[in-house]
Amino acid sequence: MSHTVINLADKLSKINEHWSPRVVAEMNELQFKLVKLGGEFVWHQHDDTDEAFLVLDGQIRIDFRDGVVELGAGEMYVVPRGVSHRPVAEQEASVMLIEPRGVVNTGEAGGELTAENDRWI
Amino acid sequence: MSHTVINLADKLSKINEHWSPRVVAEMNELQFKLVKLGGEFVWHQHDDTDEAFLVLDGQIRIDFRDGVVELGAGEMYVVPRGVSHRPVAEQEASVMLIEPRGVVNTGEAGGELTAENDRWI
Repeated sequence: MSHTVINLADKLSKINEHWSPRVVAEMNELQFKLVKLGGEFVWHQHDDTDEAFLVLDGQIRIDFRDGVVELGAGEMYVVPRGVSHRPVAEQEASVMLIEPRGVVNTGEAGGELTAENDRWI
Repeated sequence: MSHTVINLADKLSKINEHWSPRVVAEMNELQFKLVKLGGEFVWHQHDDTDEAFLVLDGQIRIDFRDGVVELGAGEMYVVPRGVSHRPVAEQEASVMLIEPRGVVNTGEAGGELTAENDRWI
């Protein structure tokens, strides 16, 4: 059994791309992923799972069809399954995503921002 | 649908007890719980689930039968299911626990530190 601690700042320092989630831990069927946001993501939804966002650094916005949430460091929000949303970061921001293994970052929308899964850091 | 952001520092400021986890969010079958640690908890294990610890403030130690991990703010660790462990905080520390709804804080050990579940804050 590993007794290695996961230091989130250390892990983030190794991420140089936007919208490219990296797995740092697993718990049951879930993955904890770190991702750097920059600019506007695509509108998408995840029909089979909720998705938790915890902001570690910077500010993000999550647009919904009927509103918006703005999140700073130390703030979190859970996007319910099936709800169309668009993450946006005017300036680079760092986020921890918590969601089940296998969730595709662009949901049903696909497109060029679709990231490969299970990339550990 | 609620567009209310969860500010972890605000939530923590409302917790005045040690070892009394408070739910701040749910995602699928999981709960995100904030807890303030102080002193030594009881040795226990959770046979049916892993348990994620993310330290928000202060320093904690998790003792295992075969070792120890020490965690500061911004560090996380996932205790595998079935592994006996004992959280310790020499000074008060604040932690986010991520685990399925219904997990009892003292696992199979029980005792006076067993906390009521589903207390939201």
